[in-house]
Amino acid sequence: MLKRDGGILKIEEVSCVKLAEKYGTPLFIYSEKKIRENCRTFYNAFKKRYPNEVVVCVGFKANYNLALRKIVIQEGCGGDCFGYEMYLAILTGQDPEKTVLNGPGKSEEIIRLAIHYGAYINIDSSNELERVNKIAQELKKTAKICPRIRLPLKDLEGRLFFDKRYTQGIDIAKWEREFKFGIEPDKLFEVIEKALKANYLKLEGLHYHGGLPRRAGFFKEEILELMDYIGYIKEKFNWEPKILNIGGGFLSPREGYEKHPPTIDEYAEVITNTILNKCNEYKISPPRLYIEPGRWHWENAAIYLVRVIEIKEDTTLAKKKWVYTDGSINELCDPFDPFMGYHKVVIANRLPEESKEVVDICGQLCNAADIIAKNVEVPLIREGDLLALMDVGAYNESFANQSNAKPRSAAVLVNGEYEALIKRRETYQDIINRDLIPYWLA
Amino acid sequence: MLKRDGGILKIEEVSCVKLAEKYGTPLFIYSEKKIRENCRTFYNAFKKRYPNEVVVCVGFKANYNLALRKIVIQEGCGGDCFGYEMYLAILTGQDPEKTVLNGPGKSEEIIRLAIHYGAYINIDSSNELERVNKIAQELKKTAKICPRIRLPLKDLEGRLFFDKRYTQGIDIAKWEREFKFGIEPDKLFEVIEKALKANYLKLEGLHYHGGLPRRAGFFKEEILELMDYIGYIKEKFNWEPKILNIGGGFLSPREGYEKHPPTIDEYAEVITNTILNKCNEYKISPPRLYIEPGRWHWENAAIYLVRVIEIKEDTTLAKKKWVYTDGSINELCDPFDPFMGYHKVVIANRLPEESKEVVDICGQLCNAADIIAKNVEVPLIREGDLLALMDVGAYNESFANQSNAKPRSAAVLVNGEYEALIKRRETYQDIINRDLIPYWLA
Repeated sequence: MLKRDGGILKIEEVSCVKLAEKYGTPLFIYSEKKIRENCRTFYNAFKKRYPNEVVVCVGFKANYNLALRKIVIQEGCGGDCFGYEMYLAILTGQDPEKTVLNGPGKSEEIIRLAIHYGAYINIDSSNELERVNKIAQELKKTAKICPRIRLPLKDLEGRLFFDKRYTQGIDIAKWEREFKFGIEPDKLFEVIEKALKANYLKLEGLHYHGGLPRRAGFFKEEILELMDYIGYIKEKFNWEPKILNIGGGFLSPREGYEKHPPTIDEYAEVITNTILNKCNEYKISPPRLYIEPGRWHWENAAIYLVRVIEIKEDTTLAKKKWVYTDGSINELCDPFDPFMGYHKVVIANRLPEESKEVVDICGQLCNAADIIAKNVEVPLIREGDLLALMDVGAYNESFANQSNAKPRSAAVLVNGEYEALIKRRETYQDIINRDLIPYWLA
Repeated sequence: MLKRDGGILKIEEVSCVKLAEKYGTPLFIYSEKKIRENCRTFYNAFKKRYPNEVVVCVGFKANYNLALRKIVIQEGCGGDCFGYEMYLAILTGQDPEKTVLNGPGKSEEIIRLAIHYGAYINIDSSNELERVNKIAQELKKTAKICPRIRLPLKDLEGRLFFDKRYTQGIDIAKWEREFKFGIEPDKLFEVIEKALKANYLKLEGLHYHGGLPRRAGFFKEEILELMDYIGYIKEKFNWEPKILNIGGGFLSPREGYEKHPPTIDEYAEVITNTILNKCNEYKISPPRLYIEPGRWHWENAAIYLVRVIEIKEDTTLAKKKWVYTDGSINELCDPFDPFMGYHKVVIANRLPEESKEVVDICGQLCNAADIIAKNVEVPLIREGDLLALMDVGAYNESFANQSNAKPRSAAVLVNGEYEALIKRRETYQDIINRDLIPYWLA
């Protein structure tokens, strides 16, 4: 998606320098081609290994820009929604059959919306099951439900997960058992029993999303345990799921980073084999497979383009150099980042020089953590340069904040030689447009 | 500021239950009385111990709501601005003599604004000094400047700071020497020399803000070293500062938390004594004292009122209980929180029962970290209850994000028996109002 033309960085066929001149910086730039390629690669990896339907519900959480959602819908994807994201699914015309409502403590407003729209509701607790049944009864509609299981992960007992954040390790099974999502197996059996008898509920399948085990590389172990529960449920209730939703948490490779996550083919191979073997063992017909990736579809399809404002060199105390840009961590704050904020930095407005130096690339905020690339080795950077940070398409925009009243950036979509604004730049007036002054302070 | 009336929690004279009915939940509720009291207590603690003017520049970073800014201005305070916060200072009519522009990599737009408005500009690098001088020349105005020093903190060498986040400790002096703000002493001397000769700059004083040393309790040590540099600068350049800006970083006591930070009188006693003794030693006339608190003025003046939607109990696997509310960490994400997200929780709609239990109080987000009070012992909570989280007035609203497309809350100001909306509730339409669809995706 990126290439050089006369030294200038292009995204598809469009010059980053021209985009910076037209729209200003900082600027998020998305490649439509890359997003479409990600949709096809992901779907095909699972589809070619699986005998039933595969439905990819791309997580709104990772990016809910309306234009980007349109692209994934055109590619046949659905979406995984929490709360008000249901409205965005409806606005963008997402197929209800490919729409999943997740989350604990769902509000009545959103449950109503999901039932009426015909989305799948992943039930998070026994109390919620009753609420959904009651609301469905009031609407005189049947709610399609898939309860979410919280797994014990017995085979991972005592296993620790380490990364740069969790240097002392987290106990994977303990973390998973105690997190706020899903229903413990014993309660799940009660929920299934109730759901099978409820007049306004249709028990379509089951949902499981752990997060940490998949990230830690234990995606075989978690699916094995999940399938054993499904086997047990079949025997106990003479019921088998028509839908199996296995959640998300697929890591995307990041340009220049030392470690590589599994490829999507590696994920798909293990996961589909495990499901199919267990279906065979328990004489279960392979259910429709729902998957909820988020990061994977967006991350490598976008760059963050910033302008260098000033350089400061310390030769006596810290003996280091800071490059200050108009970008900031206000909009580079992916809270789930497996690579701890690492993004390859590329000089976009000219061919980089051969000699390199180590710098901190910073923003302008009143926050010592406002470093968009820390201790990075880069070609010599000059004031006025344009820098591109790679692999920023997931979570960064959706989690952006307005600290220090800093307006959030514009976003542009590139499609071959075409480009268009898909999010206008914020103004400081946008930031305070909800503020009111009581008369007694006027 | 909080009391009970017939079992119902009131903020000043207004019932939380009535506010929830009128404005919905979640809701930030600020006490005007408490903010005014904080302004006076803080100012007086320093003023009564200091022979020259004391100027309190309350940090916009911690809270930039326009109504709240009006209150601190009425109480005689100024403000410490970064970037676009300069516009908010101007909008609210903040005295330019009490307006300070901080930050590295300042944009030309903001420097222009500050020079024209007559604010003090805290210079962050040698290059910036030249940029400010050039812009001032173009405007034919003199820029009032106070360079910011980065201290070596020699007496703290090797000292570690521990808290729940930094369990392995951070080296205070190393952190301070290498952070992105300010000018190393040797370069500062050059900056002073240049500033004294520059035609469009008026060197008014010096700025220092460390952050970590003050938080770690070493506010005497840092001020001692700062004053020794000022003594040395006086001797070297026959110049002494008319303004000494000592930054912020004053901790505010948090209701119910095990550890108590120093009182504002304790901070003021040590800081003013240290400054005055050193002024005496170096025969320097005590400069006007500028202080930039943020947290201290806002934190204990607000509560976050949320409604309980659902309760989930796990009796077999995690053996714990989750209380799901309409609040979320999207707007409880103070990134500098010295108490790691601890906020006392109070049932607001009724007298709490005697018996207690330990629960996680959660939000509805797709984020395992979305727990607004973790492992807290609280009176039995029922569905539909209103919960008030205390001490949330600083950093939480200014750092709020819109992940999962969750609209941000309304905020209300209470003044005795009066109340008024000071921030209207966000809608999901607000969240996507910058999104555009390129024609080729329509």
